[in-house]
Amino acid sequence: MRPLNIAIIGFGKIAADQHVPSIAGNDRLELVATVSRSGAGTARRFTSYGEMLEQVEGLDAVALTTPPTARYDIARACLERGLHVLLEKPPTVTLAEIHDLACIAETEQRTLFTTWHARHNAAVEAAAKALAGKRIAAMEIVWHEDVRKWHPGQQWIWEPGGFGVFDPGINALSIATAIFPGPLFVSQAMLSFPQDAQTAVAAEIDFTSPVADGRLHCSFDFRRSKGEEWTITVRTFEGEELRLTDGGGRLLIDSAEQACEGLGEYPDIYRKFVQLIDERQSHVDVAPLRLVADCLLLGGRETVGPTPR
Amino acid sequence: MRPLNIAIIGFGKIAADQHVPSIAGNDRLELVATVSRSGAGTARRFTSYGEMLEQVEGLDAVALTTPPTARYDIARACLERGLHVLLEKPPTVTLAEIHDLACIAETEQRTLFTTWHARHNAAVEAAAKALAGKRIAAMEIVWHEDVRKWHPGQQWIWEPGGFGVFDPGINALSIATAIFPGPLFVSQAMLSFPQDAQTAVAAEIDFTSPVADGRLHCSFDFRRSKGEEWTITVRTFEGEELRLTDGGGRLLIDSAEQACEGLGEYPDIYRKFVQLIDERQSHVDVAPLRLVADCLLLGGRETVGPTPR
Repeated sequence: MRPLNIAIIGFGKIAADQHVPSIAGNDRLELVATVSRSGAGTARRFTSYGEMLEQVEGLDAVALTTPPTARYDIARACLERGLHVLLEKPPTVTLAEIHDLACIAETEQRTLFTTWHARHNAAVEAAAKALAGKRIAAMEIVWHEDVRKWHPGQQWIWEPGGFGVFDPGINALSIATAIFPGPLFVSQAMLSFPQDAQTAVAAEIDFTSPVADGRLHCSFDFRRSKGEEWTITVRTFEGEELRLTDGGGRLLIDSAEQACEGLGEYPDIYRKFVQLIDERQSHVDVAPLRLVADCLLLGGRETVGPTPR
Repeated sequence: MRPLNIAIIGFGKIAADQHVPSIAGNDRLELVATVSRSGAGTARRFTSYGEMLEQVEGLDAVALTTPPTARYDIARACLERGLHVLLEKPPTVTLAEIHDLACIAETEQRTLFTTWHARHNAAVEAAAKALAGKRIAAMEIVWHEDVRKWHPGQQWIWEPGGFGVFDPGINALSIATAIFPGPLFVSQAMLSFPQDAQTAVAAEIDFTSPVADGRLHCSFDFRRSKGEEWTITVRTFEGEELRLTDGGGRLLIDSAEQACEGLGEYPDIYRKFVQLIDERQSHVDVAPLRLVADCLLLGGRETVGPTPR
């Protein structure tokens, strides 16, 4: 069987560090081209995706790692040329765009895959299995980090559409929606906007769920000055405590570390992409982005001090 | 054929003025009960929906006209009891809730109908037919009204989840998404928040669409002091101008008034509800609410003077 020819469109740090080696490590895939306006890349390099689509023959699929605002037009053009499309998270900036792409993928009978990399940790899958069918007594999400350390110089994060603290926070929501054994609804949210920013620096969110009785709470904060914490703790009605730490990398059940062996986030993403293409299926899950939108629909706002510098 | 027995849950002004006479005028429906915490209503009156569901035998359907925050729990309970459910606009406060209700309706094989009353004007249907398949050169939505005149004493509109100017504005979006011959994507938005409110008093929104080349713009404003304007003007690539005025009530094509005869908004809503039940179909369209969410995901924010009083 000849490998699937794939191109990466948008060639930044995440493409170089994660996508390229994961494609190289998958014997069903062959990276044939990359596109970047700066000219960076590997394999055949292009500075325009239109040119790449014209010139590369036998292309089967593309991975889109551009900033989210650019993705709709590119994804639409690729689907309409009969290519399978993988989207980095978040899939698009707006919910209307990803909805339309899903319709186009169905019409064109191509695979569209909205990836949420944090979900592809083996510990996350193990947590989902452990919680399946359980009734939940409490959940606490803590996603605190220093924006100066993790997003140095990323001014776009404070601009309209930049997501602010929801840029890392959506990773937490992608895990929570994957492991929680029922739907999650935002019941209340308070968003803190710096006086000099258009996006939130912190958010406190409460959820409800038909499968839960107690407090389901989430805290996002960009103002941490020492270290970072990315944990999700879930207590079941029977008293069992699951704790995902390190952004979904480790699972503890009642304080006992669980052995979770997997391919790793991005190799598992590409394993799944190939599987979806083989099965002629799409996987379009907007739940994490929808929860961010629901926080904004329902949330209160407060103005706080300037963005951390 | 025996009529479908229906109850109204939530009995405010819109229920009394619109839902009751529209049900009375439809010979396939019989209003058998109403529920209101205040005790207001007609037919058999209840103050709790749980009591009503227990005591009324042979119920087929419910119409939910409570404030949107209460709807998810009630709609879920009704669907799980095998009832067909009609939701006033907006269907729920969050997108996650209406998504889940759609899943439940499918599982239970019951009809779920998200109504957008402004769409049920005959002029809106005529505009949609006139624009079908056309390429669009421009759209201008103006939805300006005096909040003091149209929402007197409605303090909830300024609270988190109260939608602010999007409460009437979502009617404009429900018409625009019904008549526009392709998808609409928010490309830019500026929301004006009064210093003493949690929701916007005005919004300027730009859209893009794969079927349009020119400016697609929308202006919502609650600060109008004289009269009101609820108009949508669309110019096609061929130069034809469609103008919906009076909130979708009248259609002018190239300034010529079009004769549009229909049942009227709410009678047409109930005609459609009966048809959906007969065909064992649901109609769940979240596009207007999704566009509001997209405005919040992508929009910039500015603080303006106090809420009009």
